Amino acid sequence: MSWLRNLSKFSTSTIKASSQRPKNTDPFCLLPSFTFFSHFSSNPVEDKPCAKPVEYSGLEPTKAHEKPRVVVLGSGWAGCRLMKGLDPHVYDIVCVSPRNHMVFTPLLASTCVGTLEFRSVAEPIGRIQPAISREPGSYFFLANCTQIDAHNHMVHCETVAEGVETIAPWKFSISYDKLVIALGSQPSTFGIQGVKEYAIFLREVHHAQEIRRKLLLNLMLSDVPGISEEEKQRLLHCVVVGGGPTGVEFSGELSDFITKDVRQRYAHVKDYIRVTLIEANEILSSFDDRLRRYATKQLTKSGVRLVRGMVKDVKAQNIVLSDGSEVPYGLLVWSTGVGPLPIIQSLDLPKAPSGRIGVDEWLRVPSVQDVFSIGDCSGFVESTGKQTLPALAQVAERQGKYLAALLNKIGKAGAGHANSAKEIEFGDPFVYKHLGSMATIGRYKALVDLRQGKEAKGLALAGVLSFFIWRSAYITRVISWRNRFYVFVNWITTVVFGRDISRL
Amino acid sequence: MSWLRNLSKFSTSTIKASSQRPKNTDPFCLLPSFTFFSHFSSNPVEDKPCAKPVEYSGLEPTKAHEKPRVVVLGSGWAGCRLMKGLDPHVYDIVCVSPRNHMVFTPLLASTCVGTLEFRSVAEPIGRIQPAISREPGSYFFLANCTQIDAHNHMVHCETVAEGVETIAPWKFSISYDKLVIALGSQPSTFGIQGVKEYAIFLREVHHAQEIRRKLLLNLMLSDVPGISEEEKQRLLHCVVVGGGPTGVEFSGELSDFITKDVRQRYAHVKDYIRVTLIEANEILSSFDDRLRRYATKQLTKSGVRLVRGMVKDVKAQNIVLSDGSEVPYGLLVWSTGVGPLPIIQSLDLPKAPSGRIGVDEWLRVPSVQDVFSIGDCSGFVESTGKQTLPALAQVAERQGKYLAALLNKIGKAGAGHANSAKEIEFGDPFVYKHLGSMATIGRYKALVDLRQGKEAKGLALAGVLSFFIWRSAYITRVISWRNRFYVFVNWITTVVFGRDISRL
Repeated sequence: MSWLRNLSKFSTSTIKASSQRPKNTDPFCLLPSFTFFSHFSSNPVEDKPCAKPVEYSGLEPTKAHEKPRVVVLGSGWAGCRLMKGLDPHVYDIVCVSPRNHMVFTPLLASTCVGTLEFRSVAEPIGRIQPAISREPGSYFFLANCTQIDAHNHMVHCETVAEGVETIAPWKFSISYDKLVIALGSQPSTFGIQGVKEYAIFLREVHHAQEIRRKLLLNLMLSDVPGISEEEKQRLLHCVVVGGGPTGVEFSGELSDFITKDVRQRYAHVKDYIRVTLIEANEILSSFDDRLRRYATKQLTKSGVRLVRGMVKDVKAQNIVLSDGSEVPYGLLVWSTGVGPLPIIQSLDLPKAPSGRIGVDEWLRVPSVQDVFSIGDCSGFVESTGKQTLPALAQVAERQGKYLAALLNKIGKAGAGHANSAKEIEFGDPFVYKHLGSMATIGRYKALVDLRQGKEAKGLALAGVLSFFIWRSAYITRVISWRNRFYVFVNWITTVVFGRDISRL
Repeated sequence: MSWLRNLSKFSTSTIKASSQRPKNTDPFCLLPSFTFFSHFSSNPVEDKPCAKPVEYSGLEPTKAHEKPRVVVLGSGWAGCRLMKGLDPHVYDIVCVSPRNHMVFTPLLASTCVGTLEFRSVAEPIGRIQPAISREPGSYFFLANCTQIDAHNHMVHCETVAEGVETIAPWKFSISYDKLVIALGSQPSTFGIQGVKEYAIFLREVHHAQEIRRKLLLNLMLSDVPGISEEEKQRLLHCVVVGGGPTGVEFSGELSDFITKDVRQRYAHVKDYIRVTLIEANEILSSFDDRLRRYATKQLTKSGVRLVRGMVKDVKAQNIVLSDGSEVPYGLLVWSTGVGPLPIIQSLDLPKAPSGRIGVDEWLRVPSVQDVFSIGDCSGFVESTGKQTLPALAQVAERQGKYLAALLNKIGKAGAGHANSAKEIEFGDPFVYKHLGSMATIGRYKALVDLRQGKEAKGLALAGVLSFFIWRSAYITRVISWRNRFYVFVNWITTVVFGRDISRL
């Protein structure tokens, strides 16, 4: 264990917290009075397998002659669009996230049944902003942010190593010149018991993988001798809770999978599989009335049972509705909207009425210097007089793009370093213009609602033509050419060969 | 839990064990004096979460007017090639395996680094033999065979439900007319401590997925502030134990990945990553001397360190060689050959000298009726005077093909049912003719050894031309057109866009 001894070498030097230290050019030196945190120690503290994380190393403040550092927390739509737009000649970019890719969420539902491959909807951050893999001062860290110290321009993080037992997580700190909090949100469970244990969300690739594995497992198990009719029906009952675009698109994909693939490949059990979509109010409530009626008709025609109800309790094999009825299920997908993450709630920063981080018209967090927040985790503070924007990819993407331009402008004006943007004219504030909503409903049909708001007038289309608009819109928005190509290839092969049913 | 009550309905009828019962046509009825096994019961017996599996239901013996039933245990090269060749007009085909796909093992090493996608090397059984998904009497059961009762023409099985907590495994039985044991082998660990805990094998898709996740994790963790030089070197040290084709191909793929992709996408740590291949004897010992020297030279040139040594002990972060030296590693891949599975060892059937199931020249298991064995789990009994064939995909595939033809012939001669093939002339025995060996060594180079044996004369090629022979040979052998297409697309995109590094 001589490399363990080696670690102590790091802890001998101490460096003052100053942004004007030209001598030390190694970005991996120690932060003020920190001694090295031994991440090999195996005596468990709390529930973590690492020992006393009292003080730890990290990236020190940048110096005046160095590029200023933008630290981005999160790798969703907001963070990734921001990183794509940031000028690597102006800034060093450091991203901290527990996943090294962005998920193209509007296509995630298609991966659950094999219409698209998982990798076709995941974009590595290094492909979105190549500087992160190449520039000496830019990094991606596979870690969670545990604390934000806005007073000292610093974030504290801990590495992610889930599922790997040969390495324990360790902590480190990063000093920032500009901080962008784009941590996103978490699925709402409304305090209902059992949702986290038994339901699967549909927000990450590993959720889609879990849904696919479970769906295929249930299809195979329901064919094994000795299973009762009732148990077979339970196993093959797919219940989706939440009638927003994600829930509707997943139900549509599932009914396509059943109509086309289950009929052929699981002929013995094809008459047992059913899809139920449970929604407390109306499905697709943000869409035009006519589109909503069309969607209801089409989904019903494809065999999706629409149930209006509230879930009261979730158990291992059934859910209980508020009217007391029990619904047995084999697969339960939960997509009822999102709420703020615990770390967002715990932050000592101004808040928007919805519990999100409060921002002003320029997406700055008021009362602290150099902190911005975009995407689902942020909302306008009350003093702006603006309403919190919906938690949509579209909003996050637009905010990321706006903020990248704003930060580039600040950096080019020489105000990129910490505490130096006080005198800068920020220019036009962020204004959100809704471009419309789209959703597929299965059977090569989609809804396209190009109205700017629920009450506004504008184009609202439904049907096969919309489906092609939807596909074209998405294929051109999937960021890299590689993934555009793979989405196209996946779609073609689904039509030609059907969906893949290997349970990997 | 009304479906639980429903189960008891199954247990009321009892049926005599007879293959001549024309009245009951439901294949899911109960076996002799079996009562239904309640798989919902939650009181644990032994280490399984299911209760007293005393007696259970299953597929009863076929009747004279029905198609005879071939039961295939396993879904590797042997079993899948057999199923592909079986005539579904002659037999009902029932496959029992813990995975619903065949793994195209020669290309598995390429999936670990993203050259190929996981799904491109996995072929669902329903695509190999479509009757399994469509014919009313043919089935695929996601289960493990737990016992073979050759005396009663019956196998006992238990369903697989790993990772899913809402369903407990249950047991069932299948009566067969012909049984084909094609369960394969397991990796040899030579009794070395720690291999199973810390090393990753390379035989299944989930192994390749684990290798990929760990490799990408180590690449990212080694970039995090606070890591020592020595720990960084350990994390990025990939050790491969075993210099057979799998170990060599994986080392070659890894060095390609490092040369092309790590340099670009993990520029900060590119100088730390190394590959060491440990082999007790010579690498690629079955290949021509000249090819072996070429491979050694090429691998060394690509930066793979070849070490001759024996592993004595495997620990969480390093391995101990027999000379006492310790080798720290971040990723350890184990591919030192295979040995018989515990279930094969425990079977009360004739054995070959190697501990495999003994078979005669027609791949029949002597002393029992209607039982055959092919692939890695079988070997010739001593009385045949033939040597046990090597555990190669090529042997398994040839045996599957031969046995499919033999069984079809028996079935067409009206001897498909249990105990009715005693008078049949089996025709030509199985003769193995080695078609040669191939292996890639990275950098678009491969070895092609077309000699029929180690001492025989014949064509032996090495280099870029061989690489194209290797790729063409494989692309035409990947079974379905869908996967041929995907392998081709994956290879093209790897050249154009590089390998994907999303850690899913």
